[in-house]
Amino acid sequence: VKRLRILVIGGLAAGPSAAAKAARTNPRAEVTLFEQTDTVSYGLCEAPYAISGEVLDEKKLVVYTPERLQTEKGIVVKTLHRVEKIFPTKHEIRVRDVRSGDVVSYEFDKLIITTGSSPRRLNVEGEDSRNVFHVSSREDTLNIMKYIDSEHPKNAVIIGGGYIGMEMSESLRKREMDVALLHRHKLPMAGLEEKTRERVVEELENNGVRFITNARVDALLQDASRKVVSVHTNKGSYETDLVILSLGVTPNVALAKDARIRLGLTGAISTDQRQQTNIDNIYSAGDCCEVKNVVTGKPMYIPLATIASRQAWVAGENAAGGKATFTGAIRAIAVRVFGLEVAQVGISSDEAREAGFDVATQEITAWSKVGIMPDNSRVTVKLIMDKRSKRVLGANLFGGNGTTSRANTLGVAIQYKMTVEDVSRFDMIYAPPFAPLWDPILIAANEGKKKM
Amino acid sequence: VKRLRILVIGGLAAGPSAAAKAARTNPRAEVTLFEQTDTVSYGLCEAPYAISGEVLDEKKLVVYTPERLQTEKGIVVKTLHRVEKIFPTKHEIRVRDVRSGDVVSYEFDKLIITTGSSPRRLNVEGEDSRNVFHVSSREDTLNIMKYIDSEHPKNAVIIGGGYIGMEMSESLRKREMDVALLHRHKLPMAGLEEKTRERVVEELENNGVRFITNARVDALLQDASRKVVSVHTNKGSYETDLVILSLGVTPNVALAKDARIRLGLTGAISTDQRQQTNIDNIYSAGDCCEVKNVVTGKPMYIPLATIASRQAWVAGENAAGGKATFTGAIRAIAVRVFGLEVAQVGISSDEAREAGFDVATQEITAWSKVGIMPDNSRVTVKLIMDKRSKRVLGANLFGGNGTTSRANTLGVAIQYKMTVEDVSRFDMIYAPPFAPLWDPILIAANEGKKKM
Repeated sequence: VKRLRILVIGGLAAGPSAAAKAARTNPRAEVTLFEQTDTVSYGLCEAPYAISGEVLDEKKLVVYTPERLQTEKGIVVKTLHRVEKIFPTKHEIRVRDVRSGDVVSYEFDKLIITTGSSPRRLNVEGEDSRNVFHVSSREDTLNIMKYIDSEHPKNAVIIGGGYIGMEMSESLRKREMDVALLHRHKLPMAGLEEKTRERVVEELENNGVRFITNARVDALLQDASRKVVSVHTNKGSYETDLVILSLGVTPNVALAKDARIRLGLTGAISTDQRQQTNIDNIYSAGDCCEVKNVVTGKPMYIPLATIASRQAWVAGENAAGGKATFTGAIRAIAVRVFGLEVAQVGISSDEAREAGFDVATQEITAWSKVGIMPDNSRVTVKLIMDKRSKRVLGANLFGGNGTTSRANTLGVAIQYKMTVEDVSRFDMIYAPPFAPLWDPILIAANEGKKKM
Repeated sequence: VKRLRILVIGGLAAGPSAAAKAARTNPRAEVTLFEQTDTVSYGLCEAPYAISGEVLDEKKLVVYTPERLQTEKGIVVKTLHRVEKIFPTKHEIRVRDVRSGDVVSYEFDKLIITTGSSPRRLNVEGEDSRNVFHVSSREDTLNIMKYIDSEHPKNAVIIGGGYIGMEMSESLRKREMDVALLHRHKLPMAGLEEKTRERVVEELENNGVRFITNARVDALLQDASRKVVSVHTNKGSYETDLVILSLGVTPNVALAKDARIRLGLTGAISTDQRQQTNIDNIYSAGDCCEVKNVVTGKPMYIPLATIASRQAWVAGENAAGGKATFTGAIRAIAVRVFGLEVAQVGISSDEAREAGFDVATQEITAWSKVGIMPDNSRVTVKLIMDKRSKRVLGANLFGGNGTTSRANTLGVAIQYKMTVEDVSRFDMIYAPPFAPLWDPILIAANEGKKKM
């Protein structure tokens, strides 16, 4: 009997998950994973915490070595193998062995594309200097750590105020650098509500980060040793010993596009709920794919590990003959900005307006536990609601310990299309050391429903 | 124009809430609240934390003084007034002024009964000694604190291993007493799952509490000064300087019963969703009432402040001419047992079996955040599920920081009758400092759905 041949392209996060799921679903399948670097299954989201020293051993970010993935999950792992072309009708891919340069073709019955994303570039001079780093691979993490340990940079410039920009601000402050964060808009963290973003700026500044607003980088000025020493912008020049580029990512779709696999309007690969592309037997998952936003019902591009993992499981299971579906996501994100927990679930008020909802919002600030208990903190909850359906569409939360968990509770309401009234009826726990009589979620919903 | 006369009987928690809501709903109504003690609006749930010293100022447990309730909420407050009889057809109550002994009748258009609950008694000799305390009123709190401060007890015996027993164990250990906790069953905290209860015993014992299992108290032996010095049980005698009785509570229904207001099978007052009793114009809320369990659809008796508050709002609003409903509760409870957070949402596996569900359970233990992050902790999640409907009926959680919040997220699923599959599809936050890639809730649901 011929074994089912499942090939997986890309090994950072979605790839290994999809491959492992496929092998588990169909133990007789022959699952082969190709990865162009020497690392698979890397916890990139933890990189800022390895760089800061909060996680003491960077090696622990490697979830599976290629060897362990092979022996424990029964996958053939080919690192330093770059897939150069997909031939959908021939059911074949062409692969280059990066070390030898040899090119070999592999036939597949099922193909899973998990090519991930690439960091956006600045496209200015000096960008490839040896002290300019992205945070998008194990190599990046190791290079940043090595550079800090050997050259003891004093000044750092971070370009881009998204999630990675926040995490790296904290990380480099912990390594005792002076940090300037250059952002091209007025406020960081696009997609969050204005007040949340203002609070983030406050937290950055309270912790010694210079946040430079509406900054356009013109050039990265190098010294003789090919190190950037100054960042030139429309807002002046910033001396620096280290530059981090955190400008977001774009999906890696060249291989797919070349094979006439359909991309969505977002520019990422479009799949059905089974994670199958427009071509039979070719699946895709992770940062190269778009995902259905269950709040709007429309595709969105949101490269998150949570979504990648789910898509990967579904792609892997279906490639192996199973019948799984991934029904979509709401966008559920949190980040620690020094002492502040910031979380978003669902869509923003701007997105809600664009999607045609009749938007009302409600913001409250309340104690996270009974007011008189020690170690208490404040949490702000903003609900984004639709006046027609009375649904909760999104929420921003920021505050102390427990903010993220509360966001998850609201996330469930958003995902399952509950109304503000439904949320106001949540039977939530009251226990003085943990939660007040009226949880901030309930306070927000009780106020919010008056606007419906 | 005649003003609507709303009378409220009982001022601890539900009473003031109901009265305030009524006054807010109908500012022209004349709202009068009767309370037999001198204290209204007291945060009894915080009492153990005032006794332990965690809350530094016990006075802060008084949410509203009678004066503030009067001036800020527009309620006439009559403390030290005991309602002795309700005349439903005459629309009248008979009230005794406790100080003067005078008896006066008050007419009502609407009546709200919030008579609360009373602590269960042990019914053994010595129970009324001056060093034996319940934790059920401000007087109790103050007496316990005064006794500890003046007599410096070294040994304490707590009788009853429910939530208050747990909190008082921690409280008295913080006051440096040796604590023996006597419980009539094998394990504490009836209603939780066996393993949760075992873990609680372990936590008690790790923190120096002697947990005495299957203990039946025969007598409280007094010395010449009317102080209990020894607790005699079937499991031996326990020397003591201080006894706490935490045996649970029973609803105060004598007034209602006498007025032929219907009680439910639980023994508490039965109301409809508008919190109206079987008698028109007479409402009830709080610990004297039963509540609909939305998981089983049946009434339950569960005296919790969260439920009392909601019922109070609804009773107050409706008494004032509004149209509010309280649709029921799931039972959502948490307690801190020293370093452990313990939470329950929904029904137990025993209750589920009794209610005729086809029960399956799934228990997992997982990291509360990304495994390699510092200050991580383990959390155990047990799901109680119904194989026929595939619904999640209940959950127990115990572990470190964040356990209670996770319970709330599962609580929403339970309240809104979601399936295990629905829960497994929750789009939850992954952020290394707060939550792992697969939240423990998702791990539990992913495993649990295999049993459906």
